[in-house]
Amino acid sequence: MGTEDETVSMMNAGIERMVPIAHQMGVRFVEVARGNVTAEVPAEGNTNHVGTVYAGVLFTVAEILGGAMAMASFDPARYYPIVKDLQIKFRRPAATAVRATTTLGEDAIAKAAADAERDGKADFVLDAELTDAAGTVVATSHGIYQLRAHGN
Amino acid sequence: MGTEDETVSMMNAGIERMVPIAHQMGVRFVEVARGNVTAEVPAEGNTNHVGTVYAGVLFTVAEILGGAMAMASFDPARYYPIVKDLQIKFRRPAATAVRATTTLGEDAIAKAAADAERDGKADFVLDAELTDAAGTVVATSHGIYQLRAHGN
Repeated sequence: MGTEDETVSMMNAGIERMVPIAHQMGVRFVEVARGNVTAEVPAEGNTNHVGTVYAGVLFTVAEILGGAMAMASFDPARYYPIVKDLQIKFRRPAATAVRATTTLGEDAIAKAAADAERDGKADFVLDAELTDAAGTVVATSHGIYQLRAHGN
Repeated sequence: MGTEDETVSMMNAGIERMVPIAHQMGVRFVEVARGNVTAEVPAEGNTNHVGTVYAGVLFTVAEILGGAMAMASFDPARYYPIVKDLQIKFRRPAATAVRATTTLGEDAIAKAAADAERDGKADFVLDAELTDAAGTVVATSHGIYQLRAHGN
């Protein structure tokens, strides 16, 4: 558990340094482990014209899972992640803080690791669920990410 | 042209008041007219872990077109817009300011207006193209929005 908490702290420091606009939204990771990532974002300062959490903020808390998943599930000394394509479906308005969570199975991790070893790059797919403070699903996302070998 | 400039100014004031995080990104409209909307966002402050414009910022400059399109093409005294579903495909990294532009044809405007008149709500679809300062397409988006009668 000590290691997991350190990973979360490191990834949250990474948001602040590397994706400042997500840090400004208040996006932070709450779990970062091989195959499992959860992030959250507050409603305060992030609302839209109807007083609920803005779509771009929901996108961000979902999209950012991919970076942490790549860091936690593959070798960050060898690969960095990019996002290729993301679809987000808005189900319900969110009036509270929102949590986004996703998983990547061991088979999918093994396949992407093998692809990246062979090709210097590899796609992986994340389906995320976004819930409000009451546990209601407010959005779902489907993202295609790519691992790339450094220098590629 | 005077009217069009006033619409742009009004919509930019609207971003600041209604979607503060988009205002913080520096998102602003450059054209807002019936059937035609263009917005842009700077690269400064909006970068990611590889130094290019963060995906959530590209999402925002694309997504926000729908609100302005609704205001400019339908009756804002009767309807407000929401976004239901948006897919964004990232084609190239963007290292400069990015412009997002979309159009909605007269037939599509007429159909949505008739649907909204009849049902109190109506979907409309926007395909947007995002280009960098050199005119290179950095992303494309496909969004489904809904007009809703106030009070619905």
